[in-house]
Amino acid sequence: MNTRQAVVPFIAVVALAVQVCAQAREQKPGPLTLESQGSLFVGGEVKSAPPSAAAGPGAAPAEITVNQMYVQYQIPLRAEKHAPVVMVHGCCLSSKTWETTPDGRMGWNEYFVRKGRSVYLADQVSRARSGFDPSVIAAVKSGAAPPSSLPNIIAASHQVAWTVFRFGPTYPKPFEDGQFPVEAANELYKQMIPDLNALLPDPNPTWTNMAALGRQLEGAVLMGHSESGFFPQQAALIDPSGIRAMISIEQPCPELTPAQIAALARIPTLVMFGDHLGDVAPGIVNWKTTYDGCNAYVEKVKAAGGDITMMWLPAMGIRGNSHMLMQDRNNLQLADLILGWLDKHVDNKK
Amino acid sequence: MNTRQAVVPFIAVVALAVQVCAQAREQKPGPLTLESQGSLFVGGEVKSAPPSAAAGPGAAPAEITVNQMYVQYQIPLRAEKHAPVVMVHGCCLSSKTWETTPDGRMGWNEYFVRKGRSVYLADQVSRARSGFDPSVIAAVKSGAAPPSSLPNIIAASHQVAWTVFRFGPTYPKPFEDGQFPVEAANELYKQMIPDLNALLPDPNPTWTNMAALGRQLEGAVLMGHSESGFFPQQAALIDPSGIRAMISIEQPCPELTPAQIAALARIPTLVMFGDHLGDVAPGIVNWKTTYDGCNAYVEKVKAAGGDITMMWLPAMGIRGNSHMLMQDRNNLQLADLILGWLDKHVDNKK
Repeated sequence: MNTRQAVVPFIAVVALAVQVCAQAREQKPGPLTLESQGSLFVGGEVKSAPPSAAAGPGAAPAEITVNQMYVQYQIPLRAEKHAPVVMVHGCCLSSKTWETTPDGRMGWNEYFVRKGRSVYLADQVSRARSGFDPSVIAAVKSGAAPPSSLPNIIAASHQVAWTVFRFGPTYPKPFEDGQFPVEAANELYKQMIPDLNALLPDPNPTWTNMAALGRQLEGAVLMGHSESGFFPQQAALIDPSGIRAMISIEQPCPELTPAQIAALARIPTLVMFGDHLGDVAPGIVNWKTTYDGCNAYVEKVKAAGGDITMMWLPAMGIRGNSHMLMQDRNNLQLADLILGWLDKHVDNKK
Repeated sequence: MNTRQAVVPFIAVVALAVQVCAQAREQKPGPLTLESQGSLFVGGEVKSAPPSAAAGPGAAPAEITVNQMYVQYQIPLRAEKHAPVVMVHGCCLSSKTWETTPDGRMGWNEYFVRKGRSVYLADQVSRARSGFDPSVIAAVKSGAAPPSSLPNIIAASHQVAWTVFRFGPTYPKPFEDGQFPVEAANELYKQMIPDLNALLPDPNPTWTNMAALGRQLEGAVLMGHSESGFFPQQAALIDPSGIRAMISIEQPCPELTPAQIAALARIPTLVMFGDHLGDVAPGIVNWKTTYDGCNAYVEKVKAAGGDITMMWLPAMGIRGNSHMLMQDRNNLQLADLILGWLDKHVDNKK
C-alpha cells in the first residue's frame, strides 16, 4: 500500500467520524417546549349492534360508534405564524410512521414541531387507535354471514416490505446507496399492522374526517403517504374549505375529470418521490409507473393554472431514498425541503 | 321568595363561578417542557405467513412480526429523581385512555410528566398501534379454517359501557353525584375499539413485554386498569427484576398460590377503586364482588409482609368516581393521590 492508498481511507474515516459526531449532536437537540398537546377524535357514526349476550333475552338493541378518526397533536410556542400540518400514514402502518425512526432518530412529527409547526397525527379510520367495525367478523363467527364476506386484510410480510418499500432490489439485499437504515429493518416490521381498509364504506371516512379536521383547524396542510398519499386530494374533492395545502408522498395518482383537476388546482400542492423507482423486482407496486402517473397529474394541474411542485429527489441530487423516506437517514434534510416549500408556497404566499 | 331564599342560590352561583374560574385556570397550565419524547416497540416474534399472491406460484414462504408492544414516551426535565411510570389501558380501549379526557381536560399522561415523572403509554399487544395477528381471519376467509376458529371480539356497546363503567345505574341515567363527564360520553364511545385479546397466546405477550420494558428502563412503576389492572402482577410473576412498584386500578384479582403472594409482596403496591360499586344494574361485571376479591388479595399480601395500600375512594371521602376514574372530573385529584403514594412508598422509601 503506498501513501496515497493509506491516506484516502484515513480521510474517509475522519470524514465519517465528523459526520457521525454531527449526527450524534443532532440526536441531542435540547429540550422541547410545547404550548400544548393532546388527542381528539374527528367524525364517527353510531351504528346498531347486537345486544351483549350478558344483557339477557329481549334486551334492547345496542349501539357502537364506528368510522371515527383518532388524532394526536402537539402545538409549539408561537405556532400561529404557520399553518398546522396533518400527517396521515400509509398501508399496513400507523402514525408510528412519523415518530422515532426504526434506528432511533427523530421523526418528522417532532422535527416539524421544533420548526414551529403544529402537527396532527391521524390514525386512519379502521386502523390502530381509530379502531374498526368488527361486525362482519362476529357475523361470520356466528354463522350469520359466509366466510367470503370477511375483509381481505393486508398484512405485508418482511419480504414484501423490503421490495415494495425499496430497501433493496431483492430481499434481503440492500441498495448500496440506500438511505433506509436496513440494520433496523426488524423495527420497521414491528410497525406493520393489519390493514382493514377493505371494511370501509365509500367514500372512505378518513377522507371526510381529514376535510373536517382542516375546517376545525381553520386551515391546515394535509400530508399523506403511499396508500394515503392522495387522501389530501380526496379530502379536497369532498370539501376544500379547510385545506391550505396538500403534500403527497410516493402515492398513486388516479385518473380525474377536468372539473376535479380544476378544483384541486386551487390548492398549492407538493409531490415527492424517492430513488430506485425502477430498480426493484417486479411485485405488488410498480413505482416507475406510479411516478409516471403522478407526473401526468402534475402536468394537468399546472395546465389548469395550479401551483404544484414535483420533487423527484434524484433529479435534485439526493440519492438512495426509499419509499419510507420519512425514516431514511436523510429524513430531516427532506423535512427541510418540505418546510421550505411550505414557507414559500403557503405561509408567505403573495 | 324571602331574602334567605334569594341569598342561598346567589351564594351557590358565586361559589360555582369561583369553581369554574379555578377550573379554567387549570385548563391553561402553561407551556410543557420535555427533555425528550419518542416511541418504540418492546418484544415481537417472527412468524411464517403465506406468501403474497402477487409473489407468484412457488414463492418462498414469507414472514410477519407479531406480539410486539407499541410504547410512546415523554421524559420531563430532571426525571431521574423519580421512577418512570408505564400506563397500560383496559378492555376495548387504547392508550387514549390516559390522554385528553372526553370533555377536553388534561389526562394523567401529561399531568404525571408535568409532575416530573417519565411516562410510557403502552398499547396492549393485539390492540391499536401494536397491531394483531390476522392469520386466523385470512384462514377462515380462504376456507382453510372453520368460522368457529374466529376470535370472540369484544366491542363494548354504549349501553354496556354506561353500566360497566358506572356512569349511572341504568343507561342513560347518570348518578347524581357521578364524577364522569357524561355530557361527553359520545367522545368516550369513540375510544372504544375492538378487543382482540382472544387471539393471544398464553402467557399474554403484554405481560412479558411489560416485564421487559421494566428491565429496559432499569426499574419502572407498572400501572394497569380494569382488564390490565392485574397485568403489573402478571408481569412481576414472569420477571420482577425491573418492577419498582405496581398500581392496579379497578381490576379483578385472581386466586394465587402462597408462593405467588410471597413473590408479589416484595414489590410496593397500590390498589384503587371508585364509588357506586354495587349500584349498577347486574351485567357483565359485578364490581362489588370484584372489589371484595381484591380486598382479600390485599390482606394476603399484607399477611406476607408486603407494602400494599387499598385506596377505596369513598372511604377517603371522595364520592362519585366511575370506572374511568382517570377521566373523571376529579382525575387530577386522584393523580395526586397516586403521586403522593409513589413519593412515599417508592422514591423516598426508607
